[in-house]
Amino acid sequence: MKHDYLMNTPLAEARELLFSAAAAAGFSAGAETVGAAEASGRITAEAVFARISAPHYNASAMDGIAVAAARTFGAGESTPVYLTGDDYVVVDTGDPMPAGTDAVVMIEDVYEDENGGVRLLAAVSPWQNVRQVGEDLCMGDMIAPCGTKITPALCGAFLAGGVTRLAVKKRPVFGIIPTGDEIVKPTQSPAPGEIIEFNSVIFSAMLREWGAEPVVFDIVKDNKELLSRAVRQAAESCDAVLVLAGSSAGRDDYTSAVCAELGRVLLHGAAIKPGKPVVLGMLGEKPLIGLPGYPVSAMIVTEEFVKPLIARFYGGEEDGGQTVPAVLTKKIVSSLKYEEFVRVTLGTVGGVCYAVPLPRGAGVITSVTKAGGVLRIPQNLEGIEAGETVGVRLLQSRQSLAHTLVITGSHDPLIDLLADEINRRALGFTVVSSHVGSMGAIRAVAAGQAHMGACHLLDETTGEYNTSYVKKYFPQGGAVLRKGVGRVQGLMAAPGNPLNIRGIADLLRCRYVNRQRGAGTRVLLDYLLKTDHISPADIEGYGNEKFTHTAVAASVAAGNADAGMGIFSAAKIYGLDFIPLYHEEYDFLVNEAYADDPKVRAFFDILESEAFRRRLTEMGGYSFER
Amino acid sequence: MKHDYLMNTPLAEARELLFSAAAAAGFSAGAETVGAAEASGRITAEAVFARISAPHYNASAMDGIAVAAARTFGAGESTPVYLTGDDYVVVDTGDPMPAGTDAVVMIEDVYEDENGGVRLLAAVSPWQNVRQVGEDLCMGDMIAPCGTKITPALCGAFLAGGVTRLAVKKRPVFGIIPTGDEIVKPTQSPAPGEIIEFNSVIFSAMLREWGAEPVVFDIVKDNKELLSRAVRQAAESCDAVLVLAGSSAGRDDYTSAVCAELGRVLLHGAAIKPGKPVVLGMLGEKPLIGLPGYPVSAMIVTEEFVKPLIARFYGGEEDGGQTVPAVLTKKIVSSLKYEEFVRVTLGTVGGVCYAVPLPRGAGVITSVTKAGGVLRIPQNLEGIEAGETVGVRLLQSRQSLAHTLVITGSHDPLIDLLADEINRRALGFTVVSSHVGSMGAIRAVAAGQAHMGACHLLDETTGEYNTSYVKKYFPQGGAVLRKGVGRVQGLMAAPGNPLNIRGIADLLRCRYVNRQRGAGTRVLLDYLLKTDHISPADIEGYGNEKFTHTAVAASVAAGNADAGMGIFSAAKIYGLDFIPLYHEEYDFLVNEAYADDPKVRAFFDILESEAFRRRLTEMGGYSFER
Repeated sequence: MKHDYLMNTPLAEARELLFSAAAAAGFSAGAETVGAAEASGRITAEAVFARISAPHYNASAMDGIAVAAARTFGAGESTPVYLTGDDYVVVDTGDPMPAGTDAVVMIEDVYEDENGGVRLLAAVSPWQNVRQVGEDLCMGDMIAPCGTKITPALCGAFLAGGVTRLAVKKRPVFGIIPTGDEIVKPTQSPAPGEIIEFNSVIFSAMLREWGAEPVVFDIVKDNKELLSRAVRQAAESCDAVLVLAGSSAGRDDYTSAVCAELGRVLLHGAAIKPGKPVVLGMLGEKPLIGLPGYPVSAMIVTEEFVKPLIARFYGGEEDGGQTVPAVLTKKIVSSLKYEEFVRVTLGTVGGVCYAVPLPRGAGVITSVTKAGGVLRIPQNLEGIEAGETVGVRLLQSRQSLAHTLVITGSHDPLIDLLADEINRRALGFTVVSSHVGSMGAIRAVAAGQAHMGACHLLDETTGEYNTSYVKKYFPQGGAVLRKGVGRVQGLMAAPGNPLNIRGIADLLRCRYVNRQRGAGTRVLLDYLLKTDHISPADIEGYGNEKFTHTAVAASVAAGNADAGMGIFSAAKIYGLDFIPLYHEEYDFLVNEAYADDPKVRAFFDILESEAFRRRLTEMGGYSFER
Repeated sequence: MKHDYLMNTPLAEARELLFSAAAAAGFSAGAETVGAAEASGRITAEAVFARISAPHYNASAMDGIAVAAARTFGAGESTPVYLTGDDYVVVDTGDPMPAGTDAVVMIEDVYEDENGGVRLLAAVSPWQNVRQVGEDLCMGDMIAPCGTKITPALCGAFLAGGVTRLAVKKRPVFGIIPTGDEIVKPTQSPAPGEIIEFNSVIFSAMLREWGAEPVVFDIVKDNKELLSRAVRQAAESCDAVLVLAGSSAGRDDYTSAVCAELGRVLLHGAAIKPGKPVVLGMLGEKPLIGLPGYPVSAMIVTEEFVKPLIARFYGGEEDGGQTVPAVLTKKIVSSLKYEEFVRVTLGTVGGVCYAVPLPRGAGVITSVTKAGGVLRIPQNLEGIEAGETVGVRLLQSRQSLAHTLVITGSHDPLIDLLADEINRRALGFTVVSSHVGSMGAIRAVAAGQAHMGACHLLDETTGEYNTSYVKKYFPQGGAVLRKGVGRVQGLMAAPGNPLNIRGIADLLRCRYVNRQRGAGTRVLLDYLLKTDHISPADIEGYGNEKFTHTAVAASVAAGNADAGMGIFSAAKIYGLDFIPLYHEEYDFLVNEAYADDPKVRAFFDILESEAFRRRLTEMGGYSFER
């Protein structure tokens, strides 16, 4: 079938293509006049000079009496100087100096006389305790040069200098055109085939942060003529155009063709991942950027092309943000074909920052929302080994990075609930968790990469949970097992259990959805299969792996599978039938070095609190030891 | 005369007093509901859970054909599988999977048959190239816990999860009451004794940056009853009250008394400089902060008390910002009585960041607007020596800090104009200049603390400018003298020259305003006095020192002095008479190591450009060598 291929231009070259074309077309900020009180956050379009001095009159700098300094000369402890009411004027801080005076005696140094005069025991010199005209700012002085980001203090300085209005650089207006037959406005209940249009919300907010003004146009169907009309309209009224989705080379992708028709395409396809299917073009003097429809791809493209384009519009370079060193916990394989942007969670354990790679799919927006940073892997690298120290661009504050409780291992919603409770109580730290399965918990704690791990590992020989694993993997000690909760594992089936699933043997006659290798739930399944002498090879869907309980439930609820194993609360959320199979112990393995860490203690205080147990009880399927 | 004294409570103790009183009174954020599209920048008030999965249906992840995977099993290069039109459905990326299909064959791998069917040379496995329900986000998953700062990507994730509205923390409303008899609304031409009220503009902008909502009340005169009424009104309608000015213990300072009357005063006076006269109190459950009237004091108090109070309102701690190490260029003497906050300029020379202290006056707002950072000197330190490395809290971006051209020395407006030109041309660096006089230029260049210095130093024996100084201070080389501009120095006098000042001898019969020790202009005066056999002691006002040409001009224009020496352009701005005395050479001393630095070269390219010379010619008093 017909198929177009994309270019694979290296990122630096692609950026240069866009920026130089935009610069050549005069893509830069004009000026507009705003009130000084509204100018904070804007950028000066020309140098701002003081129109008046500040202070603009000689002002008393103290509460006291204004005098002619010469009248006080010679005053001392043994040679007081007496002044009558005609010789001085009482002044407050900020008062203008009365005619004939050039100094202020502080009120503490003024001794009132019986006759209404005053006595001074020390002289003052001319202009002492006086803020002379221009002490802060002189008329004609440059308060700020062109291109200065205006701070709140600068707003004050402008007004102090008599500048009530000033020229600031105009914000670039970006027209945003969402496209796609399947795209609908945000709703709580989209129909199958309808995709909620949220990219325009993301990019509008990003543009505002970067100093641009977004204008979102109506959603355009996948139709070349309609898109052409919308792009023409946006190019007329805006400084630049973003087309959301349709930037690839598929049947319904028209961005490139429309750009070629109305202007010229600079590039179609860059060597980045995610973000490869990008369109860069010029519509006359207006830049056009065609973004992929997948939100993560689109965000990378926006960061790499749109953010610096805005900075250049203002005549600067984009702020590259902060980069911190972090130890990679897991090997990342990368293609030599692309420069890759991998989202990672960041957590600090024992003073070392660890980066855990998140799912790399272009559609997984939660890989951005859960990320603490982004790791950039150059095009010429095949990957990065676990244990290597890498530079990670921060997406969170450096301060928050230092105060993390890192929990790695098996997934249970209670970890998220606990993170929520910790935030509610404002304990000064946040929970960073990674779902890498129960065996991952043991590895992370052993490597010192987590304060604690969550696990529910069944010893097939003893039927006991967790303890034998700790003995095996921590023969010399180094980790403490702390009781968590009991929970019921079982099989989830469609409502009403149409296939009448009663136990493990029934999996032989249905489509199963499994958990990933290393997950405690998978270990449990394998144990139960073995007990029943069933071979995994005989289970249809054994290789269909999901990473969380809710993902299994969602799969069953959607009819993608007939049964899956998981905890009761996940089945409950999805209204599924639940066939209890096994009572297991979901415990926490704490790195001994952090057993008394206040963060760890706070975690268990909450876990063991009545209020939190009530919250778990409401979810169902949990039990607690006394 | 009657005078109240302030307390001198250490900063940490003062903060704790305020924060614990506010916490005890329940000063914390409630919740309000906003649309997800408008939520960026806000903070979640409770955990947000996905209401629907994303994708919420099985979606094709590719352009291609949807098939039942089982129909493709066994396909290979030599064993193609043929499908008829009934066996597949053409799908685009994002399309829902048709009933009976569970995999997508990419379009590149589909070979069209003559009969309308297709041929496949490879099998696909179940769910290959399909985004299954919940692949990104599963219904019931926590998207963000309570207390999460909402990013643009999170807005998208909320919408993807079917969350169109959510609970965010309410912003605290701060009532701002400007006070003072002399305070007027911003104007370009205030009368003597009128002070432009700009503090409310500064603090409104700061509060907005920190996530609070400012409400500015009308200016209140210095009157206890009026202030009491305004504070009561603000406390009723706002979450907290800021009173601007009146926080000291002077005659017209009522903040403390009003706070005591309406609630209770926690503290009046903290051991910080600037910022000592602060009032902290509670009006019932609402915090009150009385700020000093001087803008710099008030900004320090706001940073130290209000910013963290807002952070605690939200249940967190304030972001302490970034601190960088910098070498102090000049000794700072500090009082053991106070914790001091010294504003500094920051410039990087040869990879080392240097901090130059700015004027420390509480009223000098330009000491904040010109500052690149703030140096905190603990209460128990008497000061810091020049050359010590200190931690400076950044007020600018770390990135901008690395790209600075540091020019130290004599003041001439052309330096500011050049900085403006450099910004206009967006050359990727900024100019950081300090006015420390011509001798300061030599010291800074010799110490490697500046790329270049500006000087106009007259050799009294030869009448030559600058060259002999370079020989004397750089006997081994290390600095290159580059020609700058010629300029005319002269005496400035009131318009019409009422005292008929004609030359240096006339200074004996008028009040003079001088430049600071080390300034080239002062060296010139001393030379001319010596030539005329006049003793400085006989000049009234010889000790009245100003730091810039415009400051001298402002002083003469205000009638604070009858004459001062300076350059023509300063006299012109103030409409003063100008009596030319001497043609001098204002040159640049370039550290040899940076003679070919692109920043230095760009500086001279602009200085020597026709356009820039025209700008100087318009100002008047400059001449140029060919």
